[in-house]
Amino acid sequence: MKAAIVTIGDELLIGQVIDTNSVFIGSMLEEVGCSVIEKVAVKDTETAIFETMSRYQNQVDLVILTGGLGPTKDDVTKKTFARYFDDELVLHKKVFLHVKQLMEQFYKRPISEMNIQQAYVPSKCKILFNEVGTAPGMLMVKEQTTFVSLPGVPYEMKYLVTEKLLPYITKHFQLNAIVHTTVLTAGIGESLLAEKIEQWENSLSALDIKLSYLPQFGMVRLRLSKTGTDEEQIKQQIHHKMEELEQLIPDFFIGISNASSLLDEVSRLLKVHQLTIATAESCTGGSIARQLTSLEGSSAYFKGSAVTYATESKVQVLGVQQHIIDTFSVVSEEVAKEMAVGVKKLFQTDIAVSTTGNAGPLKGDSEKEVGTVCIGIATPEKTETVTFNFGQPRSKVIEAAVHKVWFLLYQYLKQKKSAI
Amino acid sequence: MKAAIVTIGDELLIGQVIDTNSVFIGSMLEEVGCSVIEKVAVKDTETAIFETMSRYQNQVDLVILTGGLGPTKDDVTKKTFARYFDDELVLHKKVFLHVKQLMEQFYKRPISEMNIQQAYVPSKCKILFNEVGTAPGMLMVKEQTTFVSLPGVPYEMKYLVTEKLLPYITKHFQLNAIVHTTVLTAGIGESLLAEKIEQWENSLSALDIKLSYLPQFGMVRLRLSKTGTDEEQIKQQIHHKMEELEQLIPDFFIGISNASSLLDEVSRLLKVHQLTIATAESCTGGSIARQLTSLEGSSAYFKGSAVTYATESKVQVLGVQQHIIDTFSVVSEEVAKEMAVGVKKLFQTDIAVSTTGNAGPLKGDSEKEVGTVCIGIATPEKTETVTFNFGQPRSKVIEAAVHKVWFLLYQYLKQKKSAI
Repeated sequence: MKAAIVTIGDELLIGQVIDTNSVFIGSMLEEVGCSVIEKVAVKDTETAIFETMSRYQNQVDLVILTGGLGPTKDDVTKKTFARYFDDELVLHKKVFLHVKQLMEQFYKRPISEMNIQQAYVPSKCKILFNEVGTAPGMLMVKEQTTFVSLPGVPYEMKYLVTEKLLPYITKHFQLNAIVHTTVLTAGIGESLLAEKIEQWENSLSALDIKLSYLPQFGMVRLRLSKTGTDEEQIKQQIHHKMEELEQLIPDFFIGISNASSLLDEVSRLLKVHQLTIATAESCTGGSIARQLTSLEGSSAYFKGSAVTYATESKVQVLGVQQHIIDTFSVVSEEVAKEMAVGVKKLFQTDIAVSTTGNAGPLKGDSEKEVGTVCIGIATPEKTETVTFNFGQPRSKVIEAAVHKVWFLLYQYLKQKKSAI
Repeated sequence: MKAAIVTIGDELLIGQVIDTNSVFIGSMLEEVGCSVIEKVAVKDTETAIFETMSRYQNQVDLVILTGGLGPTKDDVTKKTFARYFDDELVLHKKVFLHVKQLMEQFYKRPISEMNIQQAYVPSKCKILFNEVGTAPGMLMVKEQTTFVSLPGVPYEMKYLVTEKLLPYITKHFQLNAIVHTTVLTAGIGESLLAEKIEQWENSLSALDIKLSYLPQFGMVRLRLSKTGTDEEQIKQQIHHKMEELEQLIPDFFIGISNASSLLDEVSRLLKVHQLTIATAESCTGGSIARQLTSLEGSSAYFKGSAVTYATESKVQVLGVQQHIIDTFSVVSEEVAKEMAVGVKKLFQTDIAVSTTGNAGPLKGDSEKEVGTVCIGIATPEKTETVTFNFGQPRSKVIEAAVHKVWFLLYQYLKQKKSAI
């Protein structure tokens, strides 16, 4: 079963917002076995929306549109939807009562003419009732293709996809199993890796397994994908191929992960070993803490972070000695070490990591080259430090430093594992 | 001048990565007056890429493709590019020497057969020389349309766009001025706002100005856009319309901003007033600190943050009194107040903000309802606290709390402004 995702709005085209809606929809569709073959962002004009719907007609089984369902004049999706199906907009009583209630109870004002417009839908459409907002989802079928229009507000869209659309899809479509398995490798470049695994890579095509290389900051993720009817068999085939791969590159093979980063693996190992962690962040500015707390249940191991951005805060909050800063510079392994030790003591944890660096574009309180980052890791056994240069721009330095912290933590925790 | 952006890779379709490349390209093209009318993500197969190129042929002036230029077998863009132009791949000597040098100096190993492949390009293409990576950008023209292929690695793509592609565009194309101006409003819903400004909105069409509503967490951004030849005249027209709007809704009009959030405005006002700030974050887990440090030059006002995720860390690090936690619960305005006061003292700043809440999905150390967030703001004058419920899911609670912090800081700083 094939699907296309259409996101509507000029803000997506001029770079004003980052589209995360289609990311969510894509991952949800893949999970139930619906293959997304294309996604497109179009202008919020009737012509652009109509032409895009026509283009996918009978080319895919399902088209999901998001956005352009608000009450204001710039939102034209519903009108276009009705026109595409030669239908007219009629007042939907249940939606009307829902909008009225929302206005009166939540916004404390009577329903307005503009609110009432939200209750109008194409007469022949199936409503995906939106309990968490005013704009309903709409589903209509033309020939071989089902079209679904969803609001662009992320949590309303997510609610409708998980609660209304996915149940509809699994009931009405013949679905294949799609299995994607991603493995992390580190310490080897993309092209050298490809040379080492060439024969193994060639063996995949006989099994109809597709291999993709996803390089990222000194790591290469390898994704194996296969679509078919027998999910168990596919999983076994891929599992077997992964075992072969591990034997082929034991020094670089980190582990199988369906997440996009090492973070989940670090999180899992912290829980396994019942270790607590704190972070002292300067140049990463809270990014490490934020990623840890983005995971549900992280309070089991994450105690907190001291984001000591200013040099004097490193002294005041973490107890870094001023003469060490004066002697070695604030961007130095000596300071990274003191920060890690200081925050470990402050939050009374088993492990602590620290970062201090010049993210750029200008040098701060240190003469060290722009892009330089020192990382400290304090464990129950010892405190280690290491220096990297991640170049420029600023955003890359911060992102690369955070990645490196996960990798260093992973290495420590993995070795810990084998010692048990 | 019209453009389309094509991003290549299955990872974009299955929701494995968030596409930020097209966001960057879109904003850069708009800045030089090139209007992006569509962007599309396609599978990394020759068929998908070829068909997409054909579809835009003579429909737009410029097509920018990113991704699929790596040395491995899953990367097929270059092959497809050559085929589309009936061209053959030939070794480019300058690129070859550059790749060889990169391998020898940076990776400390001889150039391999696979690396050499990166130096092959279509014989008739114009090279966009990639000083920061191995894969060159390629530019070719067919009939009315110029096609450009760029690597998908973000910093290589950004380098080639800013250093090579934009100069080419401004030299070879007739460009219009595109002016987008975004204004922030807050404290009024989208539909009520639309009713209040209906007549003003109607007056825009006579000037060919397009209005878009962009609602987001209790704020509505209004974007005015116009394309034309006389940039100064357009700017004046939009400026005049914005003045009218401010008079129409003085209580809700926050200010003109070409950024997507209040953060830039808060940052600007902190600098204007020479005030320093620290944050004490529990449920937001470092997100506030991270956003502040993402801005260049933030070290002028941001001293640091205490991410006290665990309840005991609020006591140990910030000096929150245990009996206050026991009496009022860790998610309470009383604790938010102590956190703000504590972090202000710890980092010795003028202002401090604090967050403590239940982001969910499960309740933590507090019995307060999931979604509840208490925010504290300590200023030189006083400390205030406020409670919100942002519902679910977890990611929305965190994002909404951060937005609310910017809004509260903005309100404080704006009032401060008028007092000077």
